[in-house]
Amino acid sequence: MIIVMNPTSTPENLEKVQQKILSMGLSYHLSKGASRTIVGVIGDKKVIADLQMNAFEGVEKTVRITEKYKLVSREFKPENTIVDVGGVKIGGPVPVVMAGPCAVESMEQLLEAAKAVKAGGAQFLRGGAFKPRTSPYDFQGLAEEGLQMLRKAGDETGLKVVTEIVDVNAVDLICKYADVLQVGARNMQNFQLLKAVGKAKKPVLLKRGLSATITEWLNAAEYIMSEGNDDVIFCERGIRTYETFTRNTLDLSAVAAIKELSHLPIIVDPSHGTGRWQMVRPMARAAIAAGADGLMIEVHPHPEMALSDGDQSLTPENFRQVMDEVHRIAAVMGRA
Amino acid sequence: MIIVMNPTSTPENLEKVQQKILSMGLSYHLSKGASRTIVGVIGDKKVIADLQMNAFEGVEKTVRITEKYKLVSREFKPENTIVDVGGVKIGGPVPVVMAGPCAVESMEQLLEAAKAVKAGGAQFLRGGAFKPRTSPYDFQGLAEEGLQMLRKAGDETGLKVVTEIVDVNAVDLICKYADVLQVGARNMQNFQLLKAVGKAKKPVLLKRGLSATITEWLNAAEYIMSEGNDDVIFCERGIRTYETFTRNTLDLSAVAAIKELSHLPIIVDPSHGTGRWQMVRPMARAAIAAGADGLMIEVHPHPEMALSDGDQSLTPENFRQVMDEVHRIAAVMGRA
Amino acid sequence: MIIVMNPTSTPENLEKVQQKILSMGLSYHLSKGASRTIVGVIGDKKVIADLQMNAFEGVEKTVRITEKYKLVSREFKPENTIVDVGGVKIGGPVPVVMAGPCAVESMEQLLEAAKAVKAGGAQFLRGGAFKPRTSPYDFQGLAEEGLQMLRKAGDETGLKVVTEIVDVNAVDLICKYADVLQVGARNMQNFQLLKAVGKAKKPVLLKRGLSATITEWLNAAEYIMSEGNDDVIFCERGIRTYETFTRNTLDLSAVAAIKELSHLPIIVDPSHGTGRWQMVRPMARAAIAAGADGLMIEVHPHPEMALSDGDQSLTPENFRQVMDEVHRIAAVMGRA
Amino acid sequence: MIIVMNPTSTPENLEKVQQKILSMGLSYHLSKGASRTIVGVIGDKKVIADLQMNAFEGVEKTVRITEKYKLVSREFKPENTIVDVGGVKIGGPVPVVMAGPCAVESMEQLLEAAKAVKAGGAQFLRGGAFKPRTSPYDFQGLAEEGLQMLRKAGDETGLKVVTEIVDVNAVDLICKYADVLQVGARNMQNFQLLKAVGKAKKPVLLKRGLSATITEWLNAAEYIMSEGNDDVIFCERGIRTYETFTRNTLDLSAVAAIKELSHLPIIVDPSHGTGRWQMVRPMARAAIAAGADGLMIEVHPHPEMALSDGDQSLTPENFRQVMDEVHRIAAVMGRA
Repeated sequence: MIIVMNPTSTPENLEKVQQKILSMGLSYHLSKGASRTIVGVIGDKKVIADLQMNAFEGVEKTVRITEKYKLVSREFKPENTIVDVGGVKIGGPVPVVMAGPCAVESMEQLLEAAKAVKAGGAQFLRGGAFKPRTSPYDFQGLAEEGLQMLRKAGDETGLKVVTEIVDVNAVDLICKYADVLQVGARNMQNFQLLKAVGKAKKPVLLKRGLSATITEWLNAAEYIMSEGNDDVIFCERGIRTYETFTRNTLDLSAVAAIKELSHLPIIVDPSHGTGRWQMVRPMARAAIAAGADGLMIEVHPHPEMALSDGDQSLTPENFRQVMDEVHRIAAVMGRA
Repeated sequence: MIIVMNPTSTPENLEKVQQKILSMGLSYHLSKGASRTIVGVIGDKKVIADLQMNAFEGVEKTVRITEKYKLVSREFKPENTIVDVGGVKIGGPVPVVMAGPCAVESMEQLLEAAKAVKAGGAQFLRGGAFKPRTSPYDFQGLAEEGLQMLRKAGDETGLKVVTEIVDVNAVDLICKYADVLQVGARNMQNFQLLKAVGKAKKPVLLKRGLSATITEWLNAAEYIMSEGNDDVIFCERGIRTYETFTRNTLDLSAVAAIKELSHLPIIVDPSHGTGRWQMVRPMARAAIAAGADGLMIEVHPHPEMALSDGDQSLTPENFRQVMDEVHRIAAVMGRA
Repeated sequence: MIIVMNPTSTPENLEKVQQKILSMGLSYHLSKGASRTIVGVIGDKKVIADLQMNAFEGVEKTVRITEKYKLVSREFKPENTIVDVGGVKIGGPVPVVMAGPCAVESMEQLLEAAKAVKAGGAQFLRGGAFKPRTSPYDFQGLAEEGLQMLRKAGDETGLKVVTEIVDVNAVDLICKYADVLQVGARNMQNFQLLKAVGKAKKPVLLKRGLSATITEWLNAAEYIMSEGNDDVIFCERGIRTYETFTRNTLDLSAVAAIKELSHLPIIVDPSHGTGRWQMVRPMARAAIAAGADGLMIEVHPHPEMALSDGDQSLTPENFRQVMDEVHRIAAVMGRA
Repeated sequence: MIIVMNPTSTPENLEKVQQKILSMGLSYHLSKGASRTIVGVIGDKKVIADLQMNAFEGVEKTVRITEKYKLVSREFKPENTIVDVGGVKIGGPVPVVMAGPCAVESMEQLLEAAKAVKAGGAQFLRGGAFKPRTSPYDFQGLAEEGLQMLRKAGDETGLKVVTEIVDVNAVDLICKYADVLQVGARNMQNFQLLKAVGKAKKPVLLKRGLSATITEWLNAAEYIMSEGNDDVIFCERGIRTYETFTRNTLDLSAVAAIKELSHLPIIVDPSHGTGRWQMVRPMARAAIAAGADGLMIEVHPHPEMALSDGDQSLTPENFRQVMDEVHRIAAVMGRA
């Protein structure tokens, strides 16, 4: 941590700052410039992380030099992590695709979707059994019945199953049916849930919060890893900005940022990221070109009949076109 | 809902849209302009709320006219709700003040803070026993021990107790010690938690999410009320913007917006809203002048020793000055 | 400037960084921690301001300690600046009010507005003769004819005149008619215009850009002052956020920030800041309570007939109510 | 326009709204729902564009159905516009690349950069002679001397020249030396400048404003086209969000949005869009995969010696690698 003293601060102010640092078992370097004295704090990173120096008189501002996360960082583990889901590898050479309807509505709908995404080349079936909805009056999902359908449709088509967990008490239930647990954007800082999936024996797909910084996202993953679960996959799904033409602003530079700062894999969800089915195709291509390890795409056999997110769901036919283009981009990237 | 047809849409496109509307038990008005046909959907608000028409061919865009929340709306209940917490009224003529340390650290610290805020004129003691922290390595709170201290300090000083709940399984535990349950910004769309506190028999203080719209915030309150709990208090605590000088951007226009759209009371937290103790005083004054029903302020006997949020905590002396000015503004507003 | 070296950086990387610093006539302090070496650069602030060190190999990040602006800073001039506009003082004990229609539409409309705002207690008549509009097909203002009307209405009612300048070539023209030159939000970083008004002999009202940081705003004022014009008044008018209920998010904490960092006065525009006339009253009160030196308010004799911004304009009757409440808040603040 | 009447509005309120509409020469459709009456306004788009109905009593809100821009819209001109710059086509099958230093510093530096970008496959040399800088104390460019160098370097290497215009009085001067006039992000709503370049006989590259919506950007282009200049090229360069890891958030979905709404070409600037040279490569690939018609990239022979934007400039060697990958993505897209 760097502490910048105010130009009008007194020697007594500085003395108190120095005492506090020493009292925490840390040491410091002083650097006196023309108008400001700067105190560089040295010592145990975790102790420094707890320092709060702005309340001291004479302190103009403080700057944190190192982040608190460790296990998720590339500094800690330089080589890429590959998450193995029953033989399907996420973060390896070949990009993966998770596709399916926003919400599980019926066995018939789900199976039709599963067959379509399998035919298109997806390795994972996605679908929500518990839906976190803005309004209490929106469709909230089929619960365990939906989980059973997901497992059945996955087994019939040979697809792995990924589904969202919203309840800290439902870990065992969902682990019974799913291959990957998804933590949604609205729960990215639901720390109880992060700790709970950190104790689970299944990989976790961690969506970026609606307005989460890269640093907060990495810290959320650290919550999971610090409980012993190393299989975390990031998923960029758009952030909240002032723009209203798209539902969210898909931040593809987050792919490059995560690759630089962490060893964990990252996939991209262009369906939620844009909120418009017409934009899924170009953004899916762009995500793979940016270096993403995979995609999550909403596909519904009949989008206009969907109970949620119909606006951003692809038809099976459109999905096939997207997959065709994605494969060609992946080939250029040496990843197909 | 208003459906705007694309200028290049066909009569068949329109026909399909009309059929879908009728199939949902709704009706419509057609309005044909020079370049666009507009379909106004009429009927049951909740059925319309589920309509998803952008996936239909020929639809340019859709516009929602009414929001989904009902119980929280001023349209539903025109007169102001006053939440009575054991005789202390929130939303009535006199603004309330909730003050205390960010986190409960020890009985000594808490009691010193409690006496100071009581002397300054606060009616509520605030303090966290379970802290939702960005990093798993930050201080996470004293848990039940912290709750016991809060109750004890509250009883000794005659202050009501408000504290944050982060775990859906902790409702009974916290209700045992606290007078008001606080749902924090990061959990504003943790719908499981909203439903759980909706079933509790204690008032709920609902902080605005870091990037929540007014509409999402109202819908979050609707989750609580739709479970039977009518005692909801909003708390504006700053939103996330591009500005970095302040920790968040305190949105005082939210006070006026909530007063227009809802009958529920709203208070303001200038400590988290700015992240700088120097700014708490002017923003506390401004909040009351904007019409807020109260304030939540971080006070620590020794901010420079605080385990969290020391940067934004007031000393007891500064708190007294703030309270003095707040009372004078409240008097002008006819609220003291 | 603080330079943080990467944990994997080599001694040669550090050597090159040190050489660059010395080659600029600067010096440095080294601080070697457990995992990172930190280089503190010392010397001439303006030379340091030009340093760009992230392109050097082995550099993890750089942190700027001091800002580039000087003349506008409170560090440079500790006491408040009072801008004297022909006897009316901005930044002194009494808050000023600038009011009038968004655009000058006719002599009749303007005079009616001028009389109303004068009666309400305003000291300045505002009105646009040149309107910067999002679309080229929107009403663009009456140009010089509008300026003449403003001067005439100002003289008849004893009000000072403030109006917006959008053209670098129009400084002389506008100075002929106006008492204060307004630089609008969309031109806050139109540096040619800033330099031009910096050479003018009239005070400048500098609105905050739609997404300008506090630092960028201070630097924009520095452009004006560095040309020799010391009479700059800041005007907070709302920033762009994700929230759509209000037209902008009025950032009242900017008042406290500017007061801390600069000696220049600051006023607040709750009309543009909210975009809703119903919100002008509470936000005007809050602005004064936050410590603003004045207000800018849109008043139109017949808002529903306004050619622009009717949605956010007050009627003369509403304006009187706002002024009454504002005066009472100002009195409590010791400013009336 | 759709006008939503408040549930508590009176028949007199509605009557006044209807009268206003008729008095403007427009007509309307009424649609009475269970709780709200909705008025659909029909008639001349430009007249409707000027309607401001929120100031009327009883109006809850208004919704605009059509945008004001026309000439730039795909509805007006369905086929793609190809801008021909002396034989180099922007918006045609082959993506173009504009590259060079942020600022022109010397003939030597510029020529070295020009040769490098030519060798890498660029068709345009970019470089700033007039630099809009946040602080008045930053390097402001070499002015006409810089323009002369640009022309000379362009002619020697066979590159077209694109450079930024910041002064409404400099159109003739810059047209003398440059092939394309660039309007920078900070001037996107400098309407005087837009009108001036609209009258010029050279193509205009219009960068997106720091917080401009897609609609505002299209309207800015409409200003240029409505003055008679049809050769407008959009350039996405990142928008301002809360994220601080990148300098801006590059919004690649803007490429798809512009392609849907307009016939004009669009290129992407990943250098300003990210502010980090390490991210230029993945974002350049992603931009082409998203469907962009070209790229603008900062290249400096010695980034660590650059007077501005060294942090985001590529070395010639890195530029060659980017170009190699970009060409392979373009080939897959059928555009090489």
